[in-house]
Amino acid sequence: MQIRPATQQDASAIGSIIGPIIQAGETYSLARDMTVTECLAYWMGPDKETFVLEDDGRILGTYYMRPNQAGGGAHVANCGYMTSPDAAGRGLARLMCAHSMDHARKRDYRAIQFNFVVSTNERAIRLWENLGYSIVGRLPKAFEHPDEGFVDALVMYQWLENA
Amino acid sequence: MQIRPATQQDASAIGSIIGPIIQAGETYSLARDMTVTECLAYWMGPDKETFVLEDDGRILGTYYMRPNQAGGGAHVANCGYMTSPDAAGRGLARLMCAHSMDHARKRDYRAIQFNFVVSTNERAIRLWENLGYSIVGRLPKAFEHPDEGFVDALVMYQWLENA
Repeated sequence: MQIRPATQQDASAIGSIIGPIIQAGETYSLARDMTVTECLAYWMGPDKETFVLEDDGRILGTYYMRPNQAGGGAHVANCGYMTSPDAAGRGLARLMCAHSMDHARKRDYRAIQFNFVVSTNERAIRLWENLGYSIVGRLPKAFEHPDEGFVDALVMYQWLENA
Repeated sequence: MQIRPATQQDASAIGSIIGPIIQAGETYSLARDMTVTECLAYWMGPDKETFVLEDDGRILGTYYMRPNQAGGGAHVANCGYMTSPDAAGRGLARLMCAHSMDHARKRDYRAIQFNFVVSTNERAIRLWENLGYSIVGRLPKAFEHPDEGFVDALVMYQWLENA
């Protein structure tokens, strides 16, 4: 198993992971009617570094990293992670998150921020907390969940010690 | 005095307000080396509604409104406000903020979020609190101030009752 930078050859495999997750609209605040091409333009856009987790030739997960702000906020990275539903429960999100923390240090980022963690995404929240992230903000009713209606979103943050 | 939608004829006046503020790099997390043309492309971009505050034919302030997120987060607006330094202390930021809250209701936004209020911008924080915003998040050392080094940034938020 390896995590490596994505190439255009990975686009189809990445699209098959991110398309259904974006279109489900339960965890990302992105337009649910985006086509897979639009999803890929977002996830692999020129503002981002995009990675894939590959296992025996299959792409099972992907993440991106970008500066969360410009100017005086450019030392804080933002990331998004998605895992193939087929590969759930195998700890792949944890592997990608740990990889991203290492990569952020290499890129001289000083912190990582998740701007919008949907509060119903409890497994992700537990995982980020376990990896050292703190909930630093709560946005009341900032996300309209397709099944649960208005729910809170969380801001999570970690200063990277030894960066 | 009136607040009205900006037109391309206002671009030069808007640029003379936002250019120096962005280039000073003390309050907005935007690249300080942006040209005025780039500043205007940002402030008057197609993702935004842009307004000006005009007094006796002079543009003294400007603000924008946009959805803060897409998809399930599109009911929350984001705004930025800038006032000409010549017109400081006259309550123009308050007028623009009140106007934006009315406008957000008209546009069926349910809340307004400020993602990144630099913690040293105390006058703005007091004003937003006075207008009903709450500090819902604190991002430790998320802004590198040109004079003060790493300082916190705040997330401020208001659900629009009666929206």
